Amino acid sequence: MNGEPRLIERIRRKVPLRAQAGLVLGIGDDCAIFRPRGSRDDLLFTTDLLLEDVHFRRETHAAAEVGWKTLARGLSDAAAMGGEPRFCLVSLAVAEWAGRDWIDDFYRGLLRLAARTGTALAGGDLARNQRLACDIVVCAAVPRGRALRRDGARTGDAIYVSGRLGGSALGLAEGPRGPRTAWRRHVHPEPRLALGAFLRERLRATAAIDLSDGLALDLHRLCLASQVSAAIEAPPRFPGATPEQALHGGEDYELLFTVPPRTRVPARFGLTPLTRIGRIEKGRAGSVFLDGAPLPPLGFDHFRPSGFDHSAVE
Amino acid sequence: MNGEPRLIERIRRKVPLRAQAGLVLGIGDDCAIFRPRGSRDDLLFTTDLLLEDVHFRRETHAAAEVGWKTLARGLSDAAAMGGEPRFCLVSLAVAEWAGRDWIDDFYRGLLRLAARTGTALAGGDLARNQRLACDIVVCAAVPRGRALRRDGARTGDAIYVSGRLGGSALGLAEGPRGPRTAWRRHVHPEPRLALGAFLRERLRATAAIDLSDGLALDLHRLCLASQVSAAIEAPPRFPGATPEQALHGGEDYELLFTVPPRTRVPARFGLTPLTRIGRIEKGRAGSVFLDGAPLPPLGFDHFRPSGFDHSAVE
Repeated sequence: MNGEPRLIERIRRKVPLRAQAGLVLGIGDDCAIFRPRGSRDDLLFTTDLLLEDVHFRRETHAAAEVGWKTLARGLSDAAAMGGEPRFCLVSLAVAEWAGRDWIDDFYRGLLRLAARTGTALAGGDLARNQRLACDIVVCAAVPRGRALRRDGARTGDAIYVSGRLGGSALGLAEGPRGPRTAWRRHVHPEPRLALGAFLRERLRATAAIDLSDGLALDLHRLCLASQVSAAIEAPPRFPGATPEQALHGGEDYELLFTVPPRTRVPARFGLTPLTRIGRIEKGRAGSVFLDGAPLPPLGFDHFRPSGFDHSAVE
Repeated sequence: MNGEPRLIERIRRKVPLRAQAGLVLGIGDDCAIFRPRGSRDDLLFTTDLLLEDVHFRRETHAAAEVGWKTLARGLSDAAAMGGEPRFCLVSLAVAEWAGRDWIDDFYRGLLRLAARTGTALAGGDLARNQRLACDIVVCAAVPRGRALRRDGARTGDAIYVSGRLGGSALGLAEGPRGPRTAWRRHVHPEPRLALGAFLRERLRATAAIDLSDGLALDLHRLCLASQVSAAIEAPPRFPGATPEQALHGGEDYELLFTVPPRTRVPARFGLTPLTRIGRIEKGRAGSVFLDGAPLPPLGFDHFRPSGFDHSAVE
């Protein structure tokens, strides 16, 4: 469950734990984990909103890009837990301005990524609305009991990040007429599904999270869930991105993960660099230090009236 | 997948069938059906949008009622297929006007129905938005291969409906200061989960659908899926509801189902009357006749700019 932390904590406290219903993990990670009776797999479920004027603008974001990104956001959550996609459900509230072509292009973009990742479009809902809103649900599978979680990082673990950070924030800042690679990064993120499966199966990563709201905030969340602290240096930057964009810019959809200290991590996974950026430490749960100085959990928090800004978490 | 039929048909044609991924049934029924590897259960999934000024108004609908109804809509889809609820995911785009109390009340209403029906709240997403929007996903389970579907009605089957129809439309028309029972019907629908399980296990119903968009439209959909026609008489009416509200009013969330001609159907299930309203016939797929005259598939179709109206299906 994403969004404003205090509010989520308040909701979480209201919810009784229901292991008897097959729910292994509820609110608090990238996905919920459900264990079907007698199945060899656990199923992961995540849901993500994509809203006009909060996550995208009709003037700059093409329909096919919105479709792609809607699904990519959900798949990225599944990747962070090592899941293999099974299906998705798409709810689409269509604004007046979006005609038949827009809707066709939206599904074209979404289905292109779906085909590439083996994700079936199983259904959804359609309604008219003043502003466009999409909600995606992704279901992914992992072998029973093997999902990567946020809460497994231990003192001494090495902290790694995939890719180079800040590209999406740079793309958003410069717009579609800015650097093409950065804009592409912003509208066509590639969910790291193969990497997630590799982390789960081969590296036996202790914890993982996807970078949807920026390194500083997402590392803070991982540390909070694992009840540890982290000491890092500056992460690798996307060409042209500022240090601020690399630390606090959202929507990179790379993976942040931890491994036991002696695990050998390859320098690359396919074309994607894997970079050691620090170490898990004892200390106040959730605290993160960059080059020895406290790094505030500032990130791309949508639970703000102002939408596109990078604002503090309460 | 709900919404405008032609559009859904266009989306459906774009989607490849993916039985290999465990998807037994995709777009086209109340829920998608997914079969986890090795599991004794099939899982049902449905998603439903509830939008400000389309499905509810902040002036008239209390937060707890919106929360209840959000979940009730999803559970009703599960009921129509004979499912036993497992968990739900809730995406909430919160408008400026909705403060902390509103959000708390929303979850209070939702969790009250969740507790009553054994549905765990497994997670969701939160964002800020100009208008309030909720999206619910419900997962329910049925024994493998036993889900009730829309497409199993056969010539000669008897057609039944649960409850009395038009109450929700009456409640909506008269508002919170109108007849109390009708308003309650509109804001506190009771998903017919026990009835759905009874239809599946005991009555061996051949087909079922929930009445979310009105009898005329939903019976048309059932007949279309089953490639049959239907001849009915007027359904039982909610006290005070007009014949029009009973035929075309949406959101009653009763069940419409068919059984083989010789099946003995009790007059009541608990307190809910079960009424025979007609018979499945040969004929043009999807056509419905009321007392011998064609009944147009008019219903509560949200895929209209005007929102609250009852409009024709293209």
